[in-house]
Amino acid sequence: MTFHIPVDNFHAARERIRPYVRQTPVLPLPAAHQDGLVQVRYKLENLQVGGSFKARGVFNNLLQLTPEERSRGVITASGGNHGVALAYGAQHLGIPAVVYLPETATADRIARVTRWGATVLRHGAAWDDANRKAVEQSRENGMTYVHAFDAVGTIEGQGTLGLELLEDFPAMDVLFVAIGGGGLLAGVAAAIKESRPEVRIIGVEPVGAPSMTTSLEAGKLVELPGLATIAETLAPRMVSERTLWFAQKYVDEVLLVTDQQMVAAMRYLWVECNQLVEPAGAASIAAMTAFPEKISGSRCPVALICGGNANAESVFSTYQPK
Amino acid sequence: MTFHIPVDNFHAARERIRPYVRQTPVLPLPAAHQDGLVQVRYKLENLQVGGSFKARGVFNNLLQLTPEERSRGVITASGGNHGVALAYGAQHLGIPAVVYLPETATADRIARVTRWGATVLRHGAAWDDANRKAVEQSRENGMTYVHAFDAVGTIEGQGTLGLELLEDFPAMDVLFVAIGGGGLLAGVAAAIKESRPEVRIIGVEPVGAPSMTTSLEAGKLVELPGLATIAETLAPRMVSERTLWFAQKYVDEVLLVTDQQMVAAMRYLWVECNQLVEPAGAASIAAMTAFPEKISGSRCPVALICGGNANAESVFSTYQPK
Repeated sequence: MTFHIPVDNFHAARERIRPYVRQTPVLPLPAAHQDGLVQVRYKLENLQVGGSFKARGVFNNLLQLTPEERSRGVITASGGNHGVALAYGAQHLGIPAVVYLPETATADRIARVTRWGATVLRHGAAWDDANRKAVEQSRENGMTYVHAFDAVGTIEGQGTLGLELLEDFPAMDVLFVAIGGGGLLAGVAAAIKESRPEVRIIGVEPVGAPSMTTSLEAGKLVELPGLATIAETLAPRMVSERTLWFAQKYVDEVLLVTDQQMVAAMRYLWVECNQLVEPAGAASIAAMTAFPEKISGSRCPVALICGGNANAESVFSTYQPK
Repeated sequence: MTFHIPVDNFHAARERIRPYVRQTPVLPLPAAHQDGLVQVRYKLENLQVGGSFKARGVFNNLLQLTPEERSRGVITASGGNHGVALAYGAQHLGIPAVVYLPETATADRIARVTRWGATVLRHGAAWDDANRKAVEQSRENGMTYVHAFDAVGTIEGQGTLGLELLEDFPAMDVLFVAIGGGGLLAGVAAAIKESRPEVRIIGVEPVGAPSMTTSLEAGKLVELPGLATIAETLAPRMVSERTLWFAQKYVDEVLLVTDQQMVAAMRYLWVECNQLVEPAGAASIAAMTAFPEKISGSRCPVALICGGNANAESVFSTYQPK
């Protein structure tokens, strides 16, 4: 069985979504903390519309809907960022949208989805539960279901990020990418490896939600019995046949990071770079810090900051007008 | 009397500080909130080393010290960001540093100064009080005093930001810049106007700290009787003869914004762009929003996000490892 996506599809997706998304910047990490080692660069996908890479896959799906499908609307389930991106994209294109979130979704994330005009419904303890409900609802109400990671259109959209990196950093020799359902990893790894197979692609998962690691080790899809991580957007109980196939084919290895390591990396990004990101957004930096030997021989390592939608409401209450 | 700085000095400063500072990116603001009007761009100086533009002036000063001056160390007073930048720059160059902060400085800002190895001392209610103490101490202990805004080296350094904008956006026709002591405005306005006099330069001050506005109206330096703004980094009681001269010569107008407008702009930058910045960093966006007529005829307006060192400690307490 193959889930192969021709590299031309990624280029076509890039042209399709170009008017709606941002080519996000890549910056050097502060030298102070490189300690004479390699210069790490980070791609700030937290500056993407909707606050994460998810807008890429969303627009690539939405822009291929028929007028009739558009009028019926779209529905999805999301750990958070895919929902924000779907709401954003649907509002921009005038499409009704429904987003199922797990009960654990933060108030900040719910607010971000609703402010783009989508209907938010909450169901279940994890993404998987919310997703079953969204699929069921889609069958009943005829809204088009847009999968958060297991859809060709979604993976093609996420892969456009890989094309940008190839263009901006031809010297890139290793890339760190966080794994939730694996759609980002699948698209980015395929887009890069099909052109530059020598670039090492390293996936990063929370210790408490090792869905890809567990499936890779078993050589088949495995559903985790439980989840224990603050990185809610990296925590489906199971990846998919499709994303597992891409990981098996294109990914060099997957590293595990603890919540503590992700929070330390969040602090580092805030203090050193003034970038406040969610735990998932800091996972790639956490992995580089926890496993320095993975970049010690690298000339041009890149960390993908996949999203920035942190829960920051508390900050604003500290600023009371005088 | 003239305080004129030849444009070559800005170019020389740029070459001098290039190895130590970042050329910060300029991005388009989200189209959703432009409502069919002009495309606004924003320069993210919150991504500068030390979290604000201040590193430019600091490095330009420090790199011109003699070896003997370096060994005696440097001293300054700061609303916060200049102190962070001085500490950062001094640590990078191996120079001892003392920073006076007003008593109102936030814990977050104190932590940012101390973590770069500088000695923090607190004195007085506003920057002006802390500054008098720093000058006095400098005379006693022989450390070189580095002024936060009223020094040729400081203004030349800040002007390098204007050169970057001219290079990145030749079409820029109006630029919004926040005013504290006026050093940023002076340098940026001079560097831009000497090359492209047709670019409109608009200064922005808090309603509760209109030090430049008051002096411009009086045609001479005026000390404000009091300050009432959350934008502590925009709140000296008085600008300087030098920065007033630059404002009179190069600045088209100065707009006043309220604390409420700055907080609303902070929220906008966070929700739309995932950029968490301090009130001063959002002042330029606040002015564009409060005075839309100032950009309605513009083809390429730019808002300078001068700094990002917001008080965000509360965010991290919401992420408890599982």
